[in-house]
Amino acid sequence: MGLIGGSLLRALAAGGHWVIGWDLDPATRAMARTAAAQAPKESRWQVSASIADAVTTADLVVIATPLTAVAHVLDEVAGAGFAGLVTDVVSVKEPVRELVARRLRGAGLRLAGYVGGHPMAGKETAGFAATDPALFHGCAWVLCLDQETSLDDWLALARLLTSLGARVVPATSEDHDHAVAAVSHVPHLLAVALATAIGEPLAGTLAAGSFRDGTRVAGSAPELIASMCGGNAGPVLDALDAVMGQLDDVRDALESDDPIGAVRRWAGPAHTARTNWPYGWGAPRQLPASPDHLLALGRDGGWITAVSSDGRTVTAARPVPEGRPL
Amino acid sequence: MGLIGGSLLRALAAGGHWVIGWDLDPATRAMARTAAAQAPKESRWQVSASIADAVTTADLVVIATPLTAVAHVLDEVAGAGFAGLVTDVVSVKEPVRELVARRLRGAGLRLAGYVGGHPMAGKETAGFAATDPALFHGCAWVLCLDQETSLDDWLALARLLTSLGARVVPATSEDHDHAVAAVSHVPHLLAVALATAIGEPLAGTLAAGSFRDGTRVAGSAPELIASMCGGNAGPVLDALDAVMGQLDDVRDALESDDPIGAVRRWAGPAHTARTNWPYGWGAPRQLPASPDHLLALGRDGGWITAVSSDGRTVTAARPVPEGRPL
Repeated sequence: MGLIGGSLLRALAAGGHWVIGWDLDPATRAMARTAAAQAPKESRWQVSASIADAVTTADLVVIATPLTAVAHVLDEVAGAGFAGLVTDVVSVKEPVRELVARRLRGAGLRLAGYVGGHPMAGKETAGFAATDPALFHGCAWVLCLDQETSLDDWLALARLLTSLGARVVPATSEDHDHAVAAVSHVPHLLAVALATAIGEPLAGTLAAGSFRDGTRVAGSAPELIASMCGGNAGPVLDALDAVMGQLDDVRDALESDDPIGAVRRWAGPAHTARTNWPYGWGAPRQLPASPDHLLALGRDGGWITAVSSDGRTVTAARPVPEGRPL
Repeated sequence: MGLIGGSLLRALAAGGHWVIGWDLDPATRAMARTAAAQAPKESRWQVSASIADAVTTADLVVIATPLTAVAHVLDEVAGAGFAGLVTDVVSVKEPVRELVARRLRGAGLRLAGYVGGHPMAGKETAGFAATDPALFHGCAWVLCLDQETSLDDWLALARLLTSLGARVVPATSEDHDHAVAAVSHVPHLLAVALATAIGEPLAGTLAAGSFRDGTRVAGSAPELIASMCGGNAGPVLDALDAVMGQLDDVRDALESDDPIGAVRRWAGPAHTARTNWPYGWGAPRQLPASPDHLLALGRDGGWITAVSSDGRTVTAARPVPEGRPL
């Protein structure tokens, strides 16, 4: 029941769902219980004493832990005989997919369904005290659509998450892991590398806006950064090498006879890309709810905002340069 | 009369000073004239038709251009026979110091004094429309105290800038250039290198907080980034190599047998440094206004907030971990 799990607990409860939370930390459980008692009656949640107690009567289990804890939680969920749908919010998807294949599907019990998920809603704050039931409004939430994923499970979860205001992005686990390595995991590594610069007191005093923003996520827990990046090491190495290639290029530019002109030429394309980002929403339209259509939408940077009641179509939007602002 | 020069024009006018602005761009001059006419009578400024017109009757000339324009402006100022005090707000100081030595002091006219300056108040917005007379309130403003700097000139300028609410930081040009390379110029290069990642549409859609903040200053004009970094190439290369050394270390960590543990150990010290930054204000105290005392203060990360009326002492503060928040 940290930032993501706790916010989801509160968002689902506010949406009228019956929700039970559990956390390894007794103090967090106590805090969540107190907060539940203070919430309006119609949007209260429960806090259980164990994972087994939480999952026995549930339709859906959401695992909202660091990657390092997922294997243990899956074992507990399988051990409790859970046969509903499992999702997670871990920021890397192939390793969780592998754990599910080994731990959940190999448990010899009734089979639970699994759809990997990842809401792009992380912040540098943490813990139940930082939770916000509106955290997912407008946020991009990847739901993985892999070979083994049941489309019905995927659509059921997409329906639930779009009801919280999330923009659900269909992607394979592999495509997800490469994309987030580039736009989420490597930014954390750059922030940490940059933050070492304030060792000198004069530098610490002169550090201002560009340093503050460039290092903000170095304030994230090192455990979280390590779990994200170390748990996605292959794609992160690829994305890091791409950035280091850019830095090698600007190193050459700085050493050239015309450093100002060379740095300007180097910075131009990224400046244009960043100034145009993010694109806004294109006009929503109906798409057939097939894996091919959904994955093509996701590769184009698109998302869905609703699933039709018969599950045959989805409401889809794509980013366009002059679209409605995000 | 861009972000810094225009904000200073307005701040000085609001402080009761008689201020004349000039800009290369006729549209900016027209905008500044219109804004002056709409300002309260007691805090209006003037806009001149040429550099010579602006400086003839002035006590102080502030050069608020990119580095690439400084030589031309210095020639104009010297050509107009200006013999008062010159300062600048360029983000790199050794190159301006060299230009002053060659252009201003070698002009064979009456000698103008020079004190290099740099307010740490940059933003990704630009132009007169973005100006703000309160921009310098609480901002760290380096004033360079080099071998050839007149202490009287330095104190006169420090008195003026502290009256605008700036925290004036004494430093040599060389120490300044190394510090800002690490905490301001390299962050711009990392932002640009990172911004190239949104070439893939899926990545552009999944990019969220860490990407937004880590690339914010890639929105700065490429000319400005090039002028800052290319104009300070030596110190920037040193600082860039330090960051790339950190990235090499995390590359090794990601390739190790225990990537999660190794990344966690790597990220720990920078996380602590960033979480503790910035320190707050220590208790203000009086210091003798001597170059040695001032430079020692600056090396410790300290600043001054006032100059005594007789110019013999300054009010100084140092950053301390549990100090009054900045």
